[in-house]
Amino acid sequence: MSVSFDRIAIIGFGLIGSSLARAIRKAGIAGEIVAIDRDEAVRARVAELGLADRVVAGPEGVEGADFVILCVPVRANAGVAEAIAPHLAPGAIISDVGSVKGAVVRDVAPLLPASVHFVPAHPVAGTEHSGPDAGFAELFVNRWSILTPPPETSPEVVARVRAFWEAIGSNVEVMTPEHHDLVLAITSHVPHLIAYNIVGTAADMEKVTQGEVIKFSAGGFRDFTRIAASDPTMWRDVFLTNKDAVLEMLGRFSEDLLALQRMIRWGDGDALHALFTRTRAIRRGIIASGQETAAPNFGRQPDPLPKPDPAGGNQ
Amino acid sequence: MSVSFDRIAIIGFGLIGSSLARAIRKAGIAGEIVAIDRDEAVRARVAELGLADRVVAGPEGVEGADFVILCVPVRANAGVAEAIAPHLAPGAIISDVGSVKGAVVRDVAPLLPASVHFVPAHPVAGTEHSGPDAGFAELFVNRWSILTPPPETSPEVVARVRAFWEAIGSNVEVMTPEHHDLVLAITSHVPHLIAYNIVGTAADMEKVTQGEVIKFSAGGFRDFTRIAASDPTMWRDVFLTNKDAVLEMLGRFSEDLLALQRMIRWGDGDALHALFTRTRAIRRGIIASGQETAAPNFGRQPDPLPKPDPAGGNQ
Repeated sequence: MSVSFDRIAIIGFGLIGSSLARAIRKAGIAGEIVAIDRDEAVRARVAELGLADRVVAGPEGVEGADFVILCVPVRANAGVAEAIAPHLAPGAIISDVGSVKGAVVRDVAPLLPASVHFVPAHPVAGTEHSGPDAGFAELFVNRWSILTPPPETSPEVVARVRAFWEAIGSNVEVMTPEHHDLVLAITSHVPHLIAYNIVGTAADMEKVTQGEVIKFSAGGFRDFTRIAASDPTMWRDVFLTNKDAVLEMLGRFSEDLLALQRMIRWGDGDALHALFTRTRAIRRGIIASGQETAAPNFGRQPDPLPKPDPAGGNQ
Repeated sequence: MSVSFDRIAIIGFGLIGSSLARAIRKAGIAGEIVAIDRDEAVRARVAELGLADRVVAGPEGVEGADFVILCVPVRANAGVAEAIAPHLAPGAIISDVGSVKGAVVRDVAPLLPASVHFVPAHPVAGTEHSGPDAGFAELFVNRWSILTPPPETSPEVVARVRAFWEAIGSNVEVMTPEHHDLVLAITSHVPHLIAYNIVGTAADMEKVTQGEVIKFSAGGFRDFTRIAASDPTMWRDVFLTNKDAVLEMLGRFSEDLLALQRMIRWGDGDALHALFTRTRAIRRGIIASGQETAAPNFGRQPDPLPKPDPAGGNQ
């Protein structure tokens, strides 16, 4: 289905909001893009980068928009919804990009006028960088966006939102907010929490210096630091709003880790080998699905080799 | 210091052994490279790839070599040392590349004749791929190699081994086996264990399908799967031989994770935000040290954006 909107208002110009603006423009699916951000420095940068047709500070920026996308940390959505509600055009579609959906549905839906359509969304894509400079048009390509529309939403509206994400390169899946929050707890939230935790544990080691942790990070540690460098406010909100699913997954993770610890303590090499073989297959599945690169080390470029020293002189 | 050897024997042609052969040849620092591997298929592949001047199956391949490097899983070192001991040339330098050093020093040193020099080494570098095809000459460039020579080793011998690693692009650090095993437990072994564990936990979730874990892995999970795809035998041996340091670090990790879990349960957003801000700085340090790329998502290439649809037809 081809899709276009007369005026798309994007609220919040971090990584996701600024990537959306770039992708929408490249796909040519909006008559006009309105950028809304309450931060003056962000607005100035958005204007410099030319990411939108108009850049405004206040909630009245949504006036006349037929598509409004909230791109703010999860716990900021309710405040934004309350502020924009009086300015929304009847028939407008409202969406968001939050990593938690149950809390958004609970907190935002009751604040919106009955004349608009609310279709919560979550593009499962990102990088460790934040702010309007970090965005890029290809962020959503071949990634999955999950829609969690309330049961009463008209199929036509859901189809328009689906077509929007497809137009900027995304695959789309529809599920309940509850299932979303459980799936994302294991594929995103708990991995982030564990990454934050191991980086914190390493930084605190008094018998090993921070310099050594950094120096020898290519042994595996550096892989964790990428997602542990993600936006602190966004992630604080994720853990506070998806508490139940995160605690449930964390319980399973810790239980499994204790079992692994016991295998090590008792020297059960066969059980360790069996687990390590099983996990290898999961990565192959992710690569086969196009969600990951098969290039070694994520395709990090190797440094060039030093030149041989044919003169045999001192180096 | 310029360095060269008349004959370097490499035992075991996995990722590290085959990378060493390639790097040694490129650097032009060996008169002859002898490849030793007990696996017939590996020997055939090494010959096809032309990685060595001679390819042999048995321990007698070390005869006449002035530098012998063991590149086998940690627990295989003792058996190899026993087999090669009668064939070692007096004055030869023996080294290894194992990720654990205390156990290697304990198990290997007593098996070697007094006429040779033993300088254990650990290049902190690797990829998730295994076997002779996975190696590449640049693997060690700008990575750190750690030497753990016994106190009685002559400084000249240590200097030669240092110069060897530097000639193939590595930085070199010297420390005790005990300190090595502690540093690597936190920068490599526990991160691998945690990665193996979260991938296992996710695979076992019955309320979330394996298909969903794979589909939505770009939310963070896929970062963990890289190191959880590493060689199972190598890693089994690491955990069994560096048990004490791994259990100690695991205890700290779990303690910190419980504290984090408590912050989530009690809604302590400020403490979460403070930790997430602190961990961001560690990554900046790793990037500044040249051990990691600053490119978003490890420099994974984005997919190209779909073309706009100017005709407005159905897609």
